[in-house]
Amino acid sequence: MDSKRTVEVAFSPVLYPYRITREDFVVVIVDVLRATTSITAAFENGVREIIPVGSVEEARKWKEKGFLVASERDGKTLDFADFGNSAFSFMTERVKGKTIAYSTTNGTQAIEMADGSGQEVAIGAFNNLSALSDWLITMNKNVVVLCSGYKNKFNLEDSFYAGALTDKLMNSGGYTTECDSATVARDMWLAGKDNIEMYINKASHRERLRNRGQDNVLEYTFTIDNASALPLLRKADKRLYNASLNKD
Amino acid sequence: MDSKRTVEVAFSPVLYPYRITREDFVVVIVDVLRATTSITAAFENGVREIIPVGSVEEARKWKEKGFLVASERDGKTLDFADFGNSAFSFMTERVKGKTIAYSTTNGTQAIEMADGSGQEVAIGAFNNLSALSDWLITMNKNVVVLCSGYKNKFNLEDSFYAGALTDKLMNSGGYTTECDSATVARDMWLAGKDNIEMYINKASHRERLRNRGQDNVLEYTFTIDNASALPLLRKADKRLYNASLNKD
Repeated sequence: MDSKRTVEVAFSPVLYPYRITREDFVVVIVDVLRATTSITAAFENGVREIIPVGSVEEARKWKEKGFLVASERDGKTLDFADFGNSAFSFMTERVKGKTIAYSTTNGTQAIEMADGSGQEVAIGAFNNLSALSDWLITMNKNVVVLCSGYKNKFNLEDSFYAGALTDKLMNSGGYTTECDSATVARDMWLAGKDNIEMYINKASHRERLRNRGQDNVLEYTFTIDNASALPLLRKADKRLYNASLNKD
Repeated sequence: MDSKRTVEVAFSPVLYPYRITREDFVVVIVDVLRATTSITAAFENGVREIIPVGSVEEARKWKEKGFLVASERDGKTLDFADFGNSAFSFMTERVKGKTIAYSTTNGTQAIEMADGSGQEVAIGAFNNLSALSDWLITMNKNVVVLCSGYKNKFNLEDSFYAGALTDKLMNSGGYTTECDSATVARDMWLAGKDNIEMYINKASHRERLRNRGQDNVLEYTFTIDNASALPLLRKADKRLYNASLNKD
Protein backbone atom coordinates (compact mmCIF):
# COMPACT_ATOMS: atom_id res chain seq x y z
CA MET A 1 0.00 0.00 0.00
CA ASP A 2 1.40 3.35 -1.06
CA SER A 3 0.26 6.08 1.28
CA LYS A 4 2.25 8.79 -0.47
CA ARG A 5 0.70 11.91 -1.84
CA THR A 6 1.10 12.85 -5.50
CA VAL A 7 2.52 15.87 -7.25
CA GLU A 8 1.57 16.79 -10.79
CA VAL A 9 2.53 19.72 -13.01
CA ALA A 10 0.50 21.47 -15.72
CA PHE A 11 2.90 23.45 -17.91
CA SER A 12 0.14 25.75 -19.15
CA PRO A 13 -3.46 26.60 -18.23
CA VAL A 14 -4.61 24.74 -21.36
CA LEU A 15 -3.05 21.54 -19.99
CA TYR A 16 -4.69 21.86 -16.58
CA PRO A 17 -8.00 20.23 -17.64
CA TYR A 18 -6.06 17.09 -18.65
CA ARG A 19 -4.43 16.48 -15.27
CA ILE A 20 -4.70 13.05 -13.66
CA THR A 21 -5.31 14.36 -10.12
CA ARG A 22 -9.01 14.88 -9.67
CA GLU A 23 -9.83 14.99 -5.96
CA ASP A 24 -8.53 16.30 -2.73
CA PHE A 25 -5.62 18.47 -3.86
CA VAL A 26 -4.12 21.93 -3.57
CA VAL A 27 -3.55 23.92 -6.76
CA VAL A 28 -0.38 26.00 -6.67
CA ILE A 29 -0.56 28.92 -9.10
CA VAL A 30 2.77 29.97 -10.58
CA ASP A 31 3.51 33.13 -12.54
CA VAL A 32 6.94 34.05 -11.25
CA LEU A 33 7.39 36.86 -13.76
CA ARG A 34 5.59 38.51 -12.16
CA ALA A 35 2.23 38.06 -10.42
CA THR A 36 2.92 35.33 -7.89
CA THR A 37 6.29 36.74 -6.85
CA SER A 38 4.78 40.18 -6.36
CA ILE A 39 1.74 38.88 -4.48
CA THR A 40 3.98 36.97 -2.08
CA ALA A 41 6.22 40.01 -1.64
CA ALA A 42 3.14 42.14 -0.93
CA PHE A 43 1.97 39.87 1.89
CA GLU A 44 5.50 39.66 3.24
CA ASN A 45 5.41 43.43 3.49
CA GLY A 46 2.16 43.59 5.40
CA VAL A 47 -0.53 43.85 2.73
CA ARG A 48 -3.82 42.63 4.22
CA GLU A 49 -5.65 41.26 1.19
CA ILE A 50 -5.22 41.11 -2.57
CA ILE A 51 -8.06 41.12 -5.05
CA PRO A 52 -6.91 39.43 -8.29
CA VAL A 53 -8.27 41.37 -11.24
CA GLY A 54 -8.27 40.21 -14.85
CA SER A 55 -8.91 43.33 -16.91
CA VAL A 56 -7.79 46.94 -16.84
CA GLU A 57 -11.41 48.06 -16.77
CA GLU A 58 -12.10 46.02 -13.66
CA ALA A 59 -8.95 47.45 -12.04
CA ARG A 60 -10.24 50.94 -12.77
CA LYS A 61 -13.52 50.14 -11.01
CA TRP A 62 -11.70 49.06 -7.85
CA LYS A 63 -9.79 52.34 -7.96
CA GLU A 64 -13.07 54.25 -8.15
CA LYS A 65 -14.24 52.36 -5.05
CA GLY A 66 -11.25 53.71 -3.17
CA PHE A 67 -8.87 50.76 -3.25
CA LEU A 68 -5.18 50.88 -3.98
CA VAL A 69 -4.64 49.44 -7.45
CA ALA A 70 -1.60 47.77 -9.03
CA SER A 71 -1.96 47.73 -12.78
CA GLU A 72 0.43 47.83 -15.67
CA ARG A 73 0.51 46.89 -19.30
CA ASP A 74 3.66 46.28 -21.29
CA GLY A 75 5.70 47.09 -18.22
CA LYS A 76 4.23 50.55 -17.65
CA THR A 77 2.05 51.61 -14.73
CA LEU A 78 -1.36 52.68 -16.02
CA ASP A 79 -2.34 56.31 -15.41
CA PHE A 80 -5.14 55.61 -12.92
CA ALA A 81 -3.17 53.01 -10.93
CA ASP A 82 -1.26 53.60 -7.70
CA PHE A 83 1.66 51.46 -8.79
CA GLY A 84 2.77 48.81 -11.25
CA ASN A 85 2.94 45.05 -10.74
CA SER A 86 6.58 44.76 -9.71
CA ALA A 87 7.44 43.18 -6.36
CA PHE A 88 9.25 46.43 -5.55
CA SER A 89 5.93 48.31 -5.66
CA PHE A 90 4.91 46.53 -2.46
CA MET A 91 7.99 47.21 -0.43
CA THR A 92 6.78 50.52 0.98
CA GLU A 93 5.02 51.61 4.17
CA ARG A 94 2.09 52.77 2.07
CA VAL A 95 0.76 49.25 1.47
CA LYS A 96 0.81 47.90 5.05
CA GLY A 97 -2.56 46.74 6.27
CA LYS A 98 -4.19 47.62 2.94
CA THR A 99 -6.35 45.68 0.50
CA ILE A 100 -4.98 45.97 -3.02
CA ALA A 101 -6.55 45.20 -6.37
CA TYR A 102 -3.82 43.53 -8.45
CA SER A 103 -4.36 43.43 -12.18
CA THR A 104 -2.86 40.36 -13.85
CA THR A 105 -4.28 38.76 -16.96
CA ASN A 106 -2.36 35.48 -16.81
CA GLY A 107 -2.51 35.16 -13.05
CA THR A 108 -6.22 35.86 -12.75
CA GLN A 109 -7.04 33.39 -15.52
CA ALA A 110 -5.06 30.70 -13.71
CA ILE A 111 -6.62 31.50 -10.32
CA GLU A 112 -10.14 31.36 -11.73
CA MET A 113 -9.43 28.07 -13.47
CA ALA A 114 -7.97 26.55 -10.31
CA ASP A 115 -10.79 27.86 -8.14
CA GLY A 116 -13.26 26.35 -10.59
CA SER A 117 -12.06 22.86 -9.70
CA GLY A 118 -13.29 23.43 -6.16
CA GLN A 119 -9.93 22.95 -4.48
CA GLU A 120 -7.72 25.00 -2.21
CA VAL A 121 -5.70 27.52 -4.24
CA ALA A 122 -2.25 28.67 -3.15
CA ILE A 123 0.25 31.13 -4.64
CA GLY A 124 3.79 29.90 -5.29
CA ALA A 125 7.00 31.69 -6.17
CA PHE A 126 10.69 31.35 -5.41
CA ASN A 127 10.44 33.79 -2.52
CA ASN A 128 8.12 31.51 -0.54
CA LEU A 129 9.32 28.12 -1.85
CA SER A 130 10.05 26.59 1.57
CA ALA A 131 7.14 28.28 3.33
CA LEU A 132 4.73 26.82 0.78
CA SER A 133 6.31 23.36 0.51
CA ASP A 134 6.52 23.02 4.30
CA TRP A 135 2.84 23.86 4.55
CA LEU A 136 1.87 21.41 1.77
CA ILE A 137 3.88 18.63 3.40
CA THR A 138 2.34 19.34 6.79
CA MET A 139 -1.15 19.42 5.31
CA ASN A 140 -0.33 16.10 3.60
CA LYS A 141 -2.21 17.09 0.45
CA ASN A 142 -1.91 16.08 -3.19
CA VAL A 143 -0.49 18.94 -5.25
CA VAL A 144 -1.12 20.19 -8.78
CA VAL A 145 1.24 22.95 -9.91
CA LEU A 146 -0.45 25.20 -12.47
CA CYS A 147 2.04 27.21 -14.51
CA SER A 148 0.58 30.38 -15.99
CA GLY A 149 2.91 30.30 -18.96
CA TYR A 150 3.00 33.13 -21.44
CA LYS A 151 -0.07 33.49 -23.62
CA ASN A 152 -0.75 29.81 -22.87
CA LYS A 153 2.63 28.72 -24.15
CA PHE A 154 4.99 26.68 -21.99
CA ASN A 155 7.55 28.94 -20.36
CA LEU A 156 10.87 28.14 -18.82
CA GLU A 157 10.66 30.18 -15.64
CA ASP A 158 7.34 28.86 -14.33
CA SER A 159 8.31 25.29 -15.21
CA PHE A 160 11.64 25.76 -13.46
CA TYR A 161 9.79 26.81 -10.32
CA ALA A 162 7.43 23.82 -10.67
CA GLY A 163 10.53 21.66 -10.67
CA ALA A 164 11.86 23.32 -7.53
CA LEU A 165 8.59 22.69 -5.71
CA THR A 166 8.39 19.11 -7.01
CA ASP A 167 11.90 18.53 -5.76
CA LYS A 168 11.04 19.86 -2.29
CA LEU A 169 7.98 17.64 -2.07
CA MET A 170 9.72 14.52 -3.39
CA ASN A 171 12.68 15.04 -1.07
CA SER A 172 10.32 15.07 1.91
CA GLY A 173 9.73 11.38 1.26
CA GLY A 174 5.98 11.84 1.40
CA TYR A 175 5.34 12.40 -2.31
CA THR A 176 5.42 10.41 -5.53
CA THR A 177 4.59 11.30 -9.13
CA GLU A 178 3.32 9.62 -12.28
CA CYS A 179 3.50 12.85 -14.22
CA ASP A 180 6.18 13.31 -16.87
CA SER A 181 5.85 17.09 -16.58
CA ALA A 182 6.78 16.90 -12.90
CA THR A 183 9.70 14.57 -13.71
CA VAL A 184 11.07 16.86 -16.43
CA ALA A 185 10.46 20.03 -14.40
CA ARG A 186 12.40 18.53 -11.51
CA ASP A 187 15.25 17.70 -13.92
CA MET A 188 15.20 21.32 -15.09
CA TRP A 189 15.52 22.47 -11.48
CA LEU A 190 18.32 20.04 -10.69
CA ALA A 191 20.20 21.13 -13.84
CA GLY A 192 19.80 24.83 -13.13
CA LYS A 193 19.61 25.31 -9.38
CA ASP A 194 23.31 25.83 -8.83
CA ASN A 195 23.43 28.64 -11.34
CA ILE A 196 19.96 30.02 -11.57
CA GLU A 197 20.89 33.22 -13.36
CA MET A 198 22.60 31.34 -16.17
CA TYR A 199 19.71 28.89 -16.45
CA ILE A 200 17.05 31.58 -16.56
CA ASN A 201 18.98 33.46 -19.20
CA LYS A 202 17.77 30.78 -21.62
CA ALA A 203 14.18 31.91 -21.24
CA SER A 204 12.51 33.76 -24.05
CA HIS A 205 10.59 35.84 -21.50
CA ARG A 206 13.88 37.02 -20.03
CA GLU A 207 14.54 38.80 -23.29
CA ARG A 208 11.17 40.52 -23.16
CA LEU A 209 11.81 41.77 -19.64
CA ARG A 210 15.24 43.00 -20.56
CA ASN A 211 13.81 44.85 -23.52
CA ARG A 212 11.29 46.53 -21.27
CA GLY A 213 13.95 47.63 -18.80
CA GLN A 214 12.50 45.48 -16.02
CA ASP A 215 15.70 43.65 -15.43
CA ASN A 216 16.14 45.05 -11.94
CA VAL A 217 13.44 42.85 -10.42
CA LEU A 218 14.88 39.60 -11.79
CA GLU A 219 17.39 39.16 -8.99
CA TYR A 220 14.58 39.42 -6.44
CA THR A 221 12.37 37.06 -8.46
CA PHE A 222 14.91 34.27 -8.40
CA THR A 223 16.04 34.70 -4.81
CA ILE A 224 14.77 31.76 -2.82
CA ASP A 225 13.05 31.86 0.54
CA ASN A 226 13.25 35.52 1.41
CA ALA A 227 9.57 35.41 2.40
CA SER A 228 7.47 33.32 4.77
CA ALA A 229 4.13 34.53 3.39
CA LEU A 230 1.63 31.86 2.37
CA PRO A 231 -0.99 33.42 0.09
CA LEU A 232 -4.19 31.39 -0.20
CA LEU A 233 -7.45 32.13 -1.97
CA ARG A 234 -10.42 32.65 0.33
CA LYS A 235 -13.36 30.95 -1.37
CA ALA A 236 -16.02 33.23 0.13
CA ASP A 237 -14.94 36.46 -1.55
CA LYS A 238 -12.21 35.33 -4.01
CA ARG A 239 -9.58 37.38 -2.26
CA LEU A 240 -6.06 36.30 -1.40
CA TYR A 241 -4.93 36.41 2.23
CA ASN A 242 -1.77 35.47 4.09
CA ALA A 243 -2.37 32.15 5.84
CA SER A 244 1.02 32.23 7.53
CA LEU A 245 -0.33 34.87 9.91
CA ASN A 246 -2.82 32.41 11.34
CA LYS A 247 -0.44 29.52 11.80
CA ASP A 248 0.96 30.33 15.22
CA MET B 1 19.35 40.74 -40.70
CA ASP B 2 18.73 37.24 -39.43
CA SER B 3 18.08 34.87 -42.28
CA LYS B 4 17.83 31.80 -40.06
CA ARG B 5 14.80 29.57 -39.96
CA THR B 6 12.96 28.93 -36.70
CA VAL B 7 12.13 25.78 -34.80
CA GLU B 8 9.29 25.64 -32.30
CA VAL B 9 7.90 22.78 -30.20
CA ALA B 10 4.31 22.16 -29.04
CA PHE B 11 4.42 19.69 -26.15
CA SER B 12 0.79 18.66 -26.69
CA PRO B 13 -1.91 19.09 -29.34
CA VAL B 14 -3.69 21.53 -27.02
CA LEU B 15 -0.63 23.80 -27.11
CA TYR B 16 -0.35 23.75 -30.90
CA PRO B 17 -2.91 26.55 -31.47
CA TYR B 18 -0.75 28.88 -29.33
CA ARG B 19 2.43 28.51 -31.37
CA ILE B 20 4.25 31.64 -32.55
CA THR B 21 5.06 30.30 -36.03
CA ARG B 22 2.14 31.10 -38.31
CA GLU B 23 3.33 30.91 -41.90
CA ASP B 24 5.48 28.89 -44.20
CA PHE B 25 6.42 25.95 -41.99
CA VAL B 26 6.52 22.18 -41.86
CA VAL B 27 4.67 20.46 -39.02
CA VAL B 28 6.47 17.38 -37.72
CA ILE B 29 4.08 14.97 -36.01
CA VAL B 30 5.61 12.95 -33.18
CA ASP B 31 4.08 9.95 -31.42
CA VAL B 32 7.10 7.75 -30.93
CA LEU B 33 5.21 5.21 -28.80
CA ARG B 34 3.99 4.15 -31.27
CA ALA B 35 2.33 5.62 -34.37
CA THR B 36 5.12 7.66 -35.95
CA THR B 37 7.79 5.03 -35.30
CA SER B 38 5.58 2.32 -36.81
CA ILE B 39 4.59 4.44 -39.81
CA THR B 40 8.23 5.17 -40.59
CA ALA B 41 9.12 1.48 -40.15
CA ALA B 42 6.29 0.55 -42.49
CA PHE B 43 7.57 2.79 -45.29
CA GLU B 44 11.10 1.58 -44.69
CA ASN B 45 9.79 -1.91 -45.32
CA GLY B 46 8.12 -1.08 -48.59
CA VAL B 47 4.57 -0.09 -47.66
CA ARG B 48 3.16 2.08 -50.44
CA GLU B 49 0.70 4.31 -48.60
CA ILE B 50 -0.77 4.68 -45.14
CA ILE B 51 -4.24 5.96 -44.41
CA PRO B 52 -4.32 7.43 -40.89
CA VAL B 53 -7.56 6.42 -39.22
CA GLY B 54 -8.90 7.85 -35.97
CA SER B 55 -11.58 5.44 -34.82
CA VAL B 56 -11.97 1.68 -34.65
CA GLU B 57 -15.19 1.95 -36.63
CA GLU B 58 -13.46 3.75 -39.44
CA ALA B 59 -10.70 1.13 -39.41
CA ARG B 60 -13.35 -1.58 -39.77
CA LYS B 61 -14.76 0.18 -42.84
CA TRP B 62 -11.38 0.19 -44.55
CA LYS B 63 -11.12 -3.51 -43.81
CA GLU B 64 -14.50 -4.08 -45.46
CA LYS B 65 -13.20 -2.23 -48.52
CA GLY B 66 -10.40 -4.76 -48.79
CA PHE B 67 -7.47 -2.87 -47.27
CA LEU B 68 -4.96 -4.25 -44.83
CA VAL B 69 -5.73 -2.76 -41.44
CA ALA B 70 -3.50 -2.15 -38.41
CA SER B 71 -5.62 -1.57 -35.35
CA GLU B 72 -5.21 -2.24 -31.68
CA ARG B 73 -6.59 -0.99 -28.39
CA ASP B 74 -4.85 -1.38 -25.06
CA GLY B 75 -2.01 -3.18 -26.80
CA LYS B 76 -4.16 -5.91 -28.34
CA THR B 77 -4.83 -6.41 -32.04
CA LEU B 78 -8.56 -6.04 -32.72
CA ASP B 79 -10.33 -9.11 -34.07
CA PHE B 80 -11.07 -7.72 -37.53
CA ALA B 81 -7.59 -6.23 -38.04
CA ASP B 82 -4.70 -7.81 -39.94
CA PHE B 83 -2.15 -6.74 -37.35
CA GLY B 84 -1.53 -4.43 -34.41
CA ASN B 85 0.23 -1.09 -34.41
CA SER B 86 3.72 -2.22 -33.47
CA ALA B 87 6.62 -1.41 -35.78
CA PHE B 88 7.28 -5.15 -35.89
CA SER B 89 3.92 -5.68 -37.64
CA PHE B 90 5.34 -3.99 -40.73
CA MET B 91 8.55 -5.94 -41.01
CA THR B 92 7.08 -8.71 -43.15
CA GLU B 93 6.85 -9.42 -46.87
CA ARG B 94 3.09 -9.23 -46.62
CA VAL B 95 3.02 -5.42 -46.44
CA LYS B 96 5.31 -4.58 -49.37
CA GLY B 97 3.67 -2.40 -51.98
CA LYS B 98 0.41 -2.29 -50.01
CA THR B 99 -1.78 0.54 -48.78
CA ILE B 100 -2.56 0.13 -45.11
CA ALA B 101 -5.16 1.76 -42.91
CA TYR B 102 -3.44 2.53 -39.61
CA SER B 103 -5.67 3.21 -36.66
CA THR B 104 -4.21 5.68 -34.16
CA THR B 105 -6.30 7.99 -32.03
CA ASN B 106 -3.52 10.33 -30.88
CA GLY B 107 -1.68 10.29 -34.19
CA THR B 108 -4.72 10.95 -36.34
CA GLN B 109 -5.84 13.80 -34.13
CA ALA B 110 -2.41 15.41 -34.45
CA ILE B 111 -2.25 14.89 -38.22
CA GLU B 112 -5.69 16.43 -38.74
CA MET B 113 -4.80 19.38 -36.55
CA ALA B 114 -1.53 19.95 -38.41
CA ASP B 115 -3.15 19.53 -41.81
CA GLY B 116 -5.79 22.07 -40.76
CA SER B 117 -3.15 24.79 -40.59
CA GLY B 118 -2.57 24.33 -44.30
CA GLN B 119 1.11 23.41 -44.05
CA GLU B 120 3.24 20.48 -45.11
CA VAL B 121 2.91 17.63 -42.61
CA ALA B 122 5.78 15.21 -41.95
CA ILE B 123 6.14 12.19 -39.67
CA GLY B 124 9.05 12.12 -37.24
CA ALA B 125 10.51 9.39 -35.04
CA PHE B 126 13.92 8.31 -33.84
CA ASN B 127 14.28 5.84 -36.69
CA ASN B 128 14.24 8.60 -39.32
CA LEU B 129 15.76 11.44 -37.29
CA SER B 130 18.58 12.25 -39.72
CA ALA B 131 16.54 11.56 -42.85
CA LEU B 132 13.92 14.03 -41.69
CA SER B 133 16.27 16.69 -40.34
CA ASP B 134 18.43 16.56 -43.47
CA TRP B 135 15.34 17.09 -45.59
CA LEU B 136 14.08 19.97 -43.44
CA ILE B 137 17.48 21.68 -43.57
CA THR B 138 17.69 21.23 -47.33
CA MET B 139 14.17 22.57 -47.79
CA ASN B 140 15.16 25.51 -45.57
CA LYS B 141 11.76 25.59 -43.90
CA ASN B 142 10.57 26.78 -40.50
CA VAL B 143 9.63 23.82 -38.32
CA VAL B 144 6.93 23.24 -35.71
CA VAL B 145 7.24 19.95 -33.84
CA LEU B 146 3.84 18.73 -32.69
CA CYS B 147 4.07 16.16 -29.89
CA SER B 148 1.05 13.89 -29.65
CA GLY B 149 1.45 13.39 -25.92
CA TYR B 150 -0.73 10.99 -24.02
CA LYS B 151 -4.37 12.01 -23.68
CA ASN B 152 -3.22 15.57 -24.30
CA LYS B 153 -0.77 15.49 -21.42
CA PHE B 154 2.89 16.32 -21.92
CA ASN B 155 4.90 13.14 -22.27
CA LEU B 156 8.59 12.56 -21.88
CA GLU B 157 9.26 10.41 -24.92
CA ASP B 158 7.76 12.71 -27.58
CA SER B 159 9.37 15.75 -25.98
CA PHE B 160 12.70 13.96 -25.89
CA TYR B 161 12.42 13.34 -29.62
CA ALA B 162 11.45 16.99 -30.19
CA GLY B 163 14.69 17.89 -28.44
CA ALA B 164 16.69 15.55 -30.66
CA LEU B 165 15.23 17.13 -33.79
CA THR B 166 15.71 20.66 -32.41
CA ASP B 167 19.34 19.81 -31.69
CA LYS B 168 19.88 18.54 -35.24
CA LEU B 169 18.36 21.67 -36.73
CA MET B 170 20.21 24.07 -34.42
CA ASN B 171 23.51 22.30 -35.00
CA SER B 172 23.12 22.83 -38.75
CA GLY B 173 23.66 26.53 -38.14
CA GLY B 174 20.59 27.44 -40.13
CA TYR B 175 18.06 27.51 -37.32
CA THR B 176 17.25 29.64 -34.29
CA THR B 177 14.48 29.47 -31.68
CA GLU B 178 12.54 31.80 -29.42
CA CYS B 179 10.53 28.94 -27.99
CA ASP B 180 11.17 27.81 -24.41
CA SER B 181 9.71 24.39 -25.22
CA ALA B 182 12.34 23.87 -27.90
CA THR B 183 15.06 25.06 -25.52
CA VAL B 184 13.98 22.72 -22.73
CA ALA B 185 13.37 19.79 -25.10
CA ARG B 186 16.87 20.21 -26.47
CA ASP B 187 18.24 20.19 -22.90
CA MET B 188 16.31 16.96 -22.28
CA TRP B 189 17.93 15.42 -25.34
CA LEU B 190 21.42 16.59 -24.39
CA ALA B 191 20.95 15.22 -20.86
CA GLY B 192 19.66 11.84 -22.04
CA LYS B 193 21.20 11.09 -25.41
CA ASP B 194 24.21 9.24 -24.11
CA ASN B 195 22.07 6.83 -22.13
CA ILE B 196 18.69 6.82 -23.81
CA GLU B 197 17.40 3.70 -22.10
CA MET B 198 18.03 5.13 -18.65
CA TYR B 199 16.49 8.45 -19.61
CA ILE B 200 13.37 6.92 -21.09
CA ASN B 201 12.89 4.76 -18.02
CA LYS B 202 11.72 7.92 -16.28
CA ALA B 203 8.67 8.11 -18.51
CA SER B 204 5.26 7.28 -17.08
CA HIS B 205 4.28 5.78 -20.44
CA ARG B 206 7.17 3.34 -20.17
CA GLU B 207 5.44 1.82 -17.18
CA ARG B 208 2.21 1.40 -19.14
CA LEU B 209 4.02 -0.35 -21.97
CA ARG B 210 5.85 -2.63 -19.59
CA ASN B 211 2.56 -3.52 -17.95
CA ARG B 212 1.10 -4.42 -21.32
CA GLY B 213 4.03 -6.62 -22.23
CA GLN B 214 5.02 -4.38 -25.14
CA ASP B 215 8.51 -3.87 -23.87
CA ASN B 216 10.08 -5.67 -26.80
CA VAL B 217 9.49 -2.82 -29.26
CA LEU B 218 11.13 -0.20 -27.05
CA GLU B 219 14.65 -0.97 -28.18
CA TYR B 220 13.59 -0.46 -31.81
CA THR B 221 11.68 2.72 -30.93
CA PHE B 222 14.74 4.39 -29.45
CA THR B 223 17.24 3.23 -32.03
CA ILE B 224 18.29 6.21 -34.09
CA ASP B 225 18.56 6.40 -37.86
CA ASN B 226 17.82 2.83 -38.86
CA ALA B 227 15.44 4.15 -41.54
CA SER B 228 15.69 6.61 -44.41
CA ALA B 229 11.95 6.82 -45.01
CA LEU B 230 10.42 10.30 -45.11
CA PRO B 231 6.66 10.02 -44.59
CA LEU B 232 4.71 13.09 -45.73
CA LEU B 233 0.99 13.75 -45.89
CA ARG B 234 -0.41 14.09 -49.39
CA LYS B 235 -2.94 16.89 -49.24
CA ALA B 236 -5.12 15.59 -52.06
CA ASP B 237 -6.27 12.38 -50.39
CA LYS B 238 -4.92 12.70 -46.81
CA ARG B 239 -2.72 9.67 -47.20
CA LEU B 240 0.88 9.31 -46.10
CA TYR B 241 3.52 8.44 -48.67
CA ASN B 242 7.27 8.00 -48.62
CA ALA B 243 8.86 11.11 -50.12
CA SER B 244 12.36 9.64 -49.90
CA LEU B 245 11.51 7.45 -52.88
CA ASN B 246 11.12 10.51 -55.11
CA LYS B 247 14.26 12.28 -54.07
CA ASP B 248 16.81 10.62 -56.31
